[in-house]
Amino acid sequence: MQPTDLIIFGASGDLSARKLFPALYHLSGCELLPESFRIAAVARDDVQTDAFLSRLKERMQSAINHTHWSEERWTKFASYFTYIKADFSDAKNLNALSKWLDDTRVSLFYLATPPSLFAPICDNLSSADCLTGDCRIVLEKPIGEDLASSEKVNETVGRYFPEGSIYRIDHYLGKETVQNLLVLRFANRFINAQWDQSCIDHVQITVAETVGIEGRWSYYDKVGQLRDMVQNHLMQLLCLVAMEPPNSMSAESIRDEKVKIVKALRPIDVDTVADHVVRGQYGQGWSQGLSVPSYTEEEGCTNPESDTETFVAIKAHIDNWRWAGVPFYLRTGKRLPEKMTEIVITYKKLPHNIFSGGDNIPNSLVIRLQPNEGIEMKMVAKKQTLKDKLGLVTHDLNLDFLGSSEMNRIPDAYERLFLDAINGDQSLFVGRSEIEESWRWCDTLIRACQLQNIQAKQYHAGSWGPAKAELLIEKDGRSWHE
Amino acid sequence: MQPTDLIIFGASGDLSARKLFPALYHLSGCELLPESFRIAAVARDDVQTDAFLSRLKERMQSAINHTHWSEERWTKFASYFTYIKADFSDAKNLNALSKWLDDTRVSLFYLATPPSLFAPICDNLSSADCLTGDCRIVLEKPIGEDLASSEKVNETVGRYFPEGSIYRIDHYLGKETVQNLLVLRFANRFINAQWDQSCIDHVQITVAETVGIEGRWSYYDKVGQLRDMVQNHLMQLLCLVAMEPPNSMSAESIRDEKVKIVKALRPIDVDTVADHVVRGQYGQGWSQGLSVPSYTEEEGCTNPESDTETFVAIKAHIDNWRWAGVPFYLRTGKRLPEKMTEIVITYKKLPHNIFSGGDNIPNSLVIRLQPNEGIEMKMVAKKQTLKDKLGLVTHDLNLDFLGSSEMNRIPDAYERLFLDAINGDQSLFVGRSEIEESWRWCDTLIRACQLQNIQAKQYHAGSWGPAKAELLIEKDGRSWHE
Repeated sequence: MQPTDLIIFGASGDLSARKLFPALYHLSGCELLPESFRIAAVARDDVQTDAFLSRLKERMQSAINHTHWSEERWTKFASYFTYIKADFSDAKNLNALSKWLDDTRVSLFYLATPPSLFAPICDNLSSADCLTGDCRIVLEKPIGEDLASSEKVNETVGRYFPEGSIYRIDHYLGKETVQNLLVLRFANRFINAQWDQSCIDHVQITVAETVGIEGRWSYYDKVGQLRDMVQNHLMQLLCLVAMEPPNSMSAESIRDEKVKIVKALRPIDVDTVADHVVRGQYGQGWSQGLSVPSYTEEEGCTNPESDTETFVAIKAHIDNWRWAGVPFYLRTGKRLPEKMTEIVITYKKLPHNIFSGGDNIPNSLVIRLQPNEGIEMKMVAKKQTLKDKLGLVTHDLNLDFLGSSEMNRIPDAYERLFLDAINGDQSLFVGRSEIEESWRWCDTLIRACQLQNIQAKQYHAGSWGPAKAELLIEKDGRSWHE
Repeated sequence: MQPTDLIIFGASGDLSARKLFPALYHLSGCELLPESFRIAAVARDDVQTDAFLSRLKERMQSAINHTHWSEERWTKFASYFTYIKADFSDAKNLNALSKWLDDTRVSLFYLATPPSLFAPICDNLSSADCLTGDCRIVLEKPIGEDLASSEKVNETVGRYFPEGSIYRIDHYLGKETVQNLLVLRFANRFINAQWDQSCIDHVQITVAETVGIEGRWSYYDKVGQLRDMVQNHLMQLLCLVAMEPPNSMSAESIRDEKVKIVKALRPIDVDTVADHVVRGQYGQGWSQGLSVPSYTEEEGCTNPESDTETFVAIKAHIDNWRWAGVPFYLRTGKRLPEKMTEIVITYKKLPHNIFSGGDNIPNSLVIRLQPNEGIEMKMVAKKQTLKDKLGLVTHDLNLDFLGSSEMNRIPDAYERLFLDAINGDQSLFVGRSEIEESWRWCDTLIRACQLQNIQAKQYHAGSWGPAKAELLIEKDGRSWHE
């Protein structure tokens, strides 16, 4: 591995302490970082490296399971660090960083900052002469808030970094289960041979959160659940489920296949939106045993009449040979009863049921991203009883990751993604065209909602969204997976 | 359930004590027998019912797991019994039985006797006027030792019992896993859709025994492994794996489909036998840690030059649409390293492997009848490691029967089969035409072996048969499942 420097903008932020530094700590502990490795922690606070580290240590200890914590590992990890104070909005402020950088090494700029800073930081890095040598940039979502603004971000960043050096993170792609989905699909002919409209009845993708707005009302109210979750996470999961087998595992092959899916998504327009989209907004209710306020009563609410959706359910269609006639039901929302992300593939029913004792129970495959990452195959077996002759029962076959692991924990998504960015492997990062095509589809849908005045229906906090979301799937004779 | 009488000929024999009576004991314990139920234990010994029962109790206590034994259950079970002394070869001897029978009840005659007695017992039952009312007969293999002799047995029995009242037992069909194979195939579209030549590479069926001849040399030497095991057990397993979906679970539908498979088996004749059949006979060696003699040194050996096979491996083809080009490798033998019965379905390899880290490992499905009945699906998953990007690993998904059972044990095959015979359900019993067609195919194969002088190759007791058996499959680029 090449000598590498990681420059984290927003190093004192929440994401850094909760996710980024713990991931690097684990990689360091597993000796997976380059032998020559440095971290520049860039933020606005006027502190020295030692003070930064002692604050960081405290925060990380609460983020890392104590069985994985050791002083020795921490000491090694801390030795990578230099703290650099900088106001990102001013090129002059980056002189200290510029001096610290070394163009014989890989420079990996990680922007853990509000997206509004992506463009200014790039401009300033360039002005301060920081972009020499092998420079790569890592961005977190959101990349824009519609097609036009995302094109603007991509263009600015693209002015300084070629596409092959831009690592757009969707951390869902770094999850073990998501990578396993690729293996499941493309290393098991048994699965692969049945992955189409002839065998599959429908697909469900659910990303459920229990949290509400968490103090970011004014930001969220401009965005809503569709832009915040569907455009990126749900779209990526949908692509991985639906894409054709790529020619290879190269980033290019995978991105080519993913973008084909986004382009094949049938636009949801004014004619179809009423039947295909349900918007919701949480009212008062209960979450995790506590009484919680409605969306428009949350702290920071400035518009009690807000129609921003905190829940959305969509029936989508992919107009290609593989998926013709197979609906993809997507739903995501806040203040739902549990934190849960899963993909459910439901196979078609038996054409003919010869077992008098049993319902015609379809097979299904449940790919669970959280909680408890794992894959379950639902099969039908004989009920083990002498009483009824061939009574049927559903069995779950579990692909239990932890059980067969070389590791004693499931690595966090950010570990995989950091490692790949350091190794220059973009296959689990998102390409520009995917993001822009996804915005194009979402923009059409959002515009259709506005034109048809599809309002956000109230739902009780702690419920599974508005009743109309049940209807969306039940009118097709199906139901959401429980 | 109708009032029923079970009449067991050979009630003092080994099969009765080890299998038949324990099965009935369990059925009684589960309250699955008819409310009005009687057992006539018929044998030659000159004893009274009490003496018969006290001897039987002793033998059964060693056959039944002590956690399932209770005096209360035994008392109830013993109350069914009447012992009737009879020499089966003389009709006059059946007068006592005739008096005991009641033609308002179902009479289920169970012939746990040498097959040479099947015909005389039927003749005598008729002469002694025992066959009035609803009479059914249960026969154990072997039904004949070639097509001609099996036709003779079937004709004699058929003179007194219509086909719908004849229950030919192949106890493999009563095993939970075998019934589960039907559910697996026909209640899981996911499995069913891939059950043909387009998806499956080949099928293996292995029935391995560790025992040798066990004191029945003179009988076995006339028969050999092919007649003793392939004609019945392996053929039945092959039929259940290969048959088309039946229209219903009725005995007629299932038998129709099974016999179509036997008829579609490509005859192995003088032109093909050398490439498709390997015969073996065990020499000296080790079994379960003990030194054991060769077949021709076994107690009771009367022909040191015997060429009778104690092992046979066959490559079979089914000439129909579903199985064209898919070989079925069968093997069975005595003095093999372990007692094991399994069916292995190996799917085709991936057409294209995009994972640099992994071999192209085909999926497979292992259906294990013993030891530890169960079904395993071999899948490929991502190795859970950060070190290699998408390293692959094989996972076994287990359909674990006992874990999800309503019962605390797996019921023995005979329990299912008794229950079905009492209920008049023939679906897990073997029809006349299946047996005769199977003999037709075996007779052709045996004749071809004789004409081509395919001799039984020596193999070490405790090995997996002669080296040629490995070659039989390896020349096709495959190998026996371990």
